[in-house]
Amino acid sequence: MMWSKFLKPYFATYRDGSKLIKQNHSTAVCNNLSETFPEEPCGPCIKTPIPGPRTKQLLEDLNKIQQANSTSIFVNYDKCAGNYLVDADGNTYLDLYTNISTIPLGYNHPELLQVFNKQHELRSLINRPALGVFPGEDWPARMKNIINMIAPYGLTQLNTMMCGACANENAFKHAFMAYRRKMRGNDNFSREEKDTALLNQVPGIPKLSIMSFKNCFHGRTLGTLSATRSKFIQKIDIPAFDWPCAPFPQYRYPLEENCEFNIEEDNKCLAEVEHLMDRWCRKGMPVAGIIVEPIQSEGGDNHASPSFFRKLQSIARNNNAAYILDEIQTGGGPTGKFWCHEYFDLDCPPDIVTFSKKLQLGGYFSTEDMKPQQPFRTFNTWMGDPGKVIILEKCLKIIMRDKLIENVCSTGKYTLECLEQIQSDFCPTIHSVRGRGTFIAFTAETPEKRNEIIKRLKSKGVWSGACGSASIRLRPTLMFQQKHADIFLDILTKVIQETRCPIRKSGPELSPCNIDKDKYRVPPPDASTPQINLKDC
Amino acid sequence: MMWSKFLKPYFATYRDGSKLIKQNHSTAVCNNLSETFPEEPCGPCIKTPIPGPRTKQLLEDLNKIQQANSTSIFVNYDKCAGNYLVDADGNTYLDLYTNISTIPLGYNHPELLQVFNKQHELRSLINRPALGVFPGEDWPARMKNIINMIAPYGLTQLNTMMCGACANENAFKHAFMAYRRKMRGNDNFSREEKDTALLNQVPGIPKLSIMSFKNCFHGRTLGTLSATRSKFIQKIDIPAFDWPCAPFPQYRYPLEENCEFNIEEDNKCLAEVEHLMDRWCRKGMPVAGIIVEPIQSEGGDNHASPSFFRKLQSIARNNNAAYILDEIQTGGGPTGKFWCHEYFDLDCPPDIVTFSKKLQLGGYFSTEDMKPQQPFRTFNTWMGDPGKVIILEKCLKIIMRDKLIENVCSTGKYTLECLEQIQSDFCPTIHSVRGRGTFIAFTAETPEKRNEIIKRLKSKGVWSGACGSASIRLRPTLMFQQKHADIFLDILTKVIQETRCPIRKSGPELSPCNIDKDKYRVPPPDASTPQINLKDC
Repeated sequence: MMWSKFLKPYFATYRDGSKLIKQNHSTAVCNNLSETFPEEPCGPCIKTPIPGPRTKQLLEDLNKIQQANSTSIFVNYDKCAGNYLVDADGNTYLDLYTNISTIPLGYNHPELLQVFNKQHELRSLINRPALGVFPGEDWPARMKNIINMIAPYGLTQLNTMMCGACANENAFKHAFMAYRRKMRGNDNFSREEKDTALLNQVPGIPKLSIMSFKNCFHGRTLGTLSATRSKFIQKIDIPAFDWPCAPFPQYRYPLEENCEFNIEEDNKCLAEVEHLMDRWCRKGMPVAGIIVEPIQSEGGDNHASPSFFRKLQSIARNNNAAYILDEIQTGGGPTGKFWCHEYFDLDCPPDIVTFSKKLQLGGYFSTEDMKPQQPFRTFNTWMGDPGKVIILEKCLKIIMRDKLIENVCSTGKYTLECLEQIQSDFCPTIHSVRGRGTFIAFTAETPEKRNEIIKRLKSKGVWSGACGSASIRLRPTLMFQQKHADIFLDILTKVIQETRCPIRKSGPELSPCNIDKDKYRVPPPDASTPQINLKDC
Repeated sequence: MMWSKFLKPYFATYRDGSKLIKQNHSTAVCNNLSETFPEEPCGPCIKTPIPGPRTKQLLEDLNKIQQANSTSIFVNYDKCAGNYLVDADGNTYLDLYTNISTIPLGYNHPELLQVFNKQHELRSLINRPALGVFPGEDWPARMKNIINMIAPYGLTQLNTMMCGACANENAFKHAFMAYRRKMRGNDNFSREEKDTALLNQVPGIPKLSIMSFKNCFHGRTLGTLSATRSKFIQKIDIPAFDWPCAPFPQYRYPLEENCEFNIEEDNKCLAEVEHLMDRWCRKGMPVAGIIVEPIQSEGGDNHASPSFFRKLQSIARNNNAAYILDEIQTGGGPTGKFWCHEYFDLDCPPDIVTFSKKLQLGGYFSTEDMKPQQPFRTFNTWMGDPGKVIILEKCLKIIMRDKLIENVCSTGKYTLECLEQIQSDFCPTIHSVRGRGTFIAFTAETPEKRNEIIKRLKSKGVWSGACGSASIRLRPTLMFQQKHADIFLDILTKVIQETRCPIRKSGPELSPCNIDKDKYRVPPPDASTPQINLKDC
C-alpha cells in the first residue's frame, strides 16, 4: 500500500525489497546537499571545557528567573550552519540531536531564511489569526496543499495545533467524542448530559480512558501526562487519570537471532492489551482510544514489529477504540519514510496520526469518522499558526525536491551498518543497535556508561541524545550525509575505546582519531543489514 | 501599590483618583496613533451579504478537511489596517473583537512588519530552538527584559509556553508540586512515590484538585477543561477531574445602586469557596490551587470587586493553595492597566499570573516559592518560541512609547460613558454596561436579541464578540481611539433602534446613521462614570 501519495517516487525505491542502495542516485543527492551549506564546518571544533565559561554565566542568569537546569548549552544560532551547532563559547558540534529532533533541514537553511521576504508571507506571520474563526483566505488552500503533500493514506482530515502535547490532547478528545457518538448512536445530547457536563459529572462527562504503553511519552499536559509512562520525574506530584498502561514489546537484538523470543514478546503484550481493555471496561471506564508511538523515542527507542501494530489496530477496532499513532518524533522523514507507520502495512488507516517537531507545529490527520459533528468541540484561540505552516510548506518542498528521504535512507543504512560493525567489535559496551532511516539508537552496557559516552562524545564535538535508561539516540537533520556519519563514527569509536571497553571481540586496533573509513563503506547487497521487520523472520 | 514597575509613569495618571481625562495629553496620544496607520479606512464598508459568496465557497472547501463551522469569515490580512479587518469578499469591518482579543497593535503595524528585517531576529525565528535545553545565547537577556518591562509586582520568575491552555496547565503543575512540597516538607521523593508515579497511583500521583468558578474559562486541554465551566459544548463527552467549582459573584448594575446586593454576592460566594475547600479536603482531594480570571471573559464579562479578590487570596493562603490569576484575556493593557489585578490592591502578590493572547505566546509569571527545585518537571520540547517573544518585545516597546495604556484609559472611559447613555436611552434592550479600560461589555435583553444585535452590527461593518448567555464584549486593539468609538456608537445606536427596542426612556429621536456626536463627548468630572470598585460604595 502506498500511503504518502506525493512521495511515491521517492519511497518506491526502498519499498520493493531492494536492499542495494543506488549509489549513483544517492551520490547525486549528496552533491546537491553539500552545495546547500557552503559555510558548514568540515568538522567539530571544541575550544573550551563543556560547559564553557560563558555558558555557565548565562545559566546562572537564567536560573535566577526560572528553573533552568535542564539547559545543556546556550547556542549562537547566527553561527550555526547545516548539521553544526555553535555554542556561546564558540564550540562547534556536529549535531545528532537537533533540538530534540525538531530541525529538519539543518540550521540557517538559506531558502528558509528567504521565506518571509515575500510580503504576503510576512503579513501572515505578523497578523496571526485565531484560525478557528478568522482564518486567512489562503488557509483552506494551504491546508489542502499540506494534505496533498503528506497526508497518511486514508486520512482526509487535518487540524493544526501549537505543539505535540496539544495535538495529542485533541486526538484524545476526538477519540472520546467518537466513542460517545458510537455508544449514543448520534450527537443529540440530552438535557441531563448538557447540565452535568458543566458539573464534571456523568452522563455529560463520561468515565472513559486512553490506553498507552509502558515507557511511552505523549506529552506533559495533564491529559497527555496521564498517558505518558516514561520517567517518574515527569509525573510525580501531578494528578492523573486512572488509565490503563499495557506492556510494550522489549525485543532482543540482533533481531534475526531472536525471532522466537521477540514474537513471544508481541504475543504477551497483545494478550495484556486485551486483558486491560476488558478490565477497564468492567471498571466502568472503557478504553476510547489506544495511543502508541511507531518507535518509542523518549522511552528508549523501542521498536515493535509491523505485525504487532496490525494486531493492536485490530484489537482497537474490535473494542470501538480509536487507534492513535503518535508520530510526533517519527513523522517528517527521519525513519526513511515520511510516516513511520508506512512500514507497518496496516489493514486500514489508523484513526488519527499526530505530528509536531520536524513539522514545525503540532497537529493531526484523521479519518472522516473522527470528525466532530458540531463546531467548537475541538477549538482554541489560535488553532496553530500560519507562520509555522509557511515554514512547513517550504520544508516539504525542499524535502521532496532534494530527495531528502532518499538521503535519509542512504545515510541511515550506511550509519546503521557501520554501527553494527562497531557493536560487533565492542559489544557489550554498546549493543542493540537498531533503527530505521537515520532514526537510530544503541544501548550502552549500563546507564552510567551511557552517560559517560554521551559526555565524551560532547567533549569531542558530537551532540547525541539520551533515551530510556541506557540508550543513545541519533536524531540528525534530514541533510545528514555519509561525510557527517563518518565523523560521528570516528569519534564514537574513539569514545568507546576510552570508555573502558572490557570485551573487544575482533578487528584490528583502531586509530581513534583517524579511523579507516573503508571499514565503514556500504557492504554488498547480500550482507545488507536487516531493518526491523518480524514478518521477515 | 505599583506593580508594573516600568509602566509606572503611565499608570500614575489614572491611579490617584483623578476622574478628569487630561485632554491635552490624550490628544497628543491620539494624534500620534493616527499617523501610525495612514492607510486605515475612515469607516466600515460592506459590499456583500455576510457571509459573502467567496467566504461561503472557502468555508465549503475548509469543511471538507476539518470541522470548520466555527469560522466566521475568511480574512484578507494583506488588506487589513489598524482597527479594520477586510474579508475575502472585500467587506471592511471596524474590528472590536480582534481575533479573540489577540491583536494588540492593530493589523499590519508598520513597525512589526520590520521586526524580522534584522538578520539576528530572522535567524532566531527560523532556527526555532528547544528552549529548555538549547536556548539562544540572547535568551536570558530577552527574558530579563520582558520581566523588567511587565512582570507583575513580586513575581520574579517567568516561563514561556506556546498558548494560554499550556500556560494554565503548567500553572496547575506548579501549584501541585508546591502543595506536595509543603506537605512533604521537601522534594526528596521516596522510592514508593517514584515507583507509583509511573503507575498513576498514590502516593506518587496524589489526589489533589484545582478550584475554579462557575462560568469561568481556562482552556480546553484535559486539565484546563476540568477547570473550565463556561459552556457545555466545550466539555461534553470529555472526561474530567473531579474538581470543585465555586459560584462567582453575579452583580447587579448599575453598581452604585446595588451596593448592598453586590456585597452580599461577594460574601455568599466566598462562604461557598470556604465550604468547598473544606469539602474537597474531606473527600481526600484537597485544593492545591485556586484559578480565577480578574474579569470572567468567555463566561460573560463578569466582574468582581477588589475586595472579593483580596479575600479569595486570603482563603487560598490559609489553605496552602496557590492563587493563580488567569490574565490570558485581561493581560496586556486592555483594562487600562497592564495587568487587571493591579486594580485589586492585593495584600501580597498572587502566586502565579498566566498570560497569552495579546502577549503573542503563552506563559506565566510566578513567585520564587512556586519554582520547582528540580529540572525537567515543567518542561516540553519548545517551551515557547523566540519568534513570538521578539514580536512581543517590539509590541511592549510600542505600547510604552506610544502611551497606549493611556489611550486605552481615555478611549475606554469615553466609550463606557457613551454606552451608559445609550443604555439609559434604550434599557432594557441593552443593560449592565460595564468595563475597565476598553475591556467593555453590555448585556442584551435576551440571548436572541444579543445574537440579533451582533448580526446587525456585523451587517453594518462592526465586528463584536458574544460572551456569556446574552452579553456582547468589546475587545478592540490598544490603538482604538475616540474616532473609532464614535463610529461604533453610531452604528450600535442604529442597530438597537432596529432591534425592536420596546422601552425607550428619554432623549430626542436619533438619526440612525448620523447621530449627534456631541451627545457622546466626555462629561465633566463630577459626572464621571464609576468603574467597578465595591470599596467605593
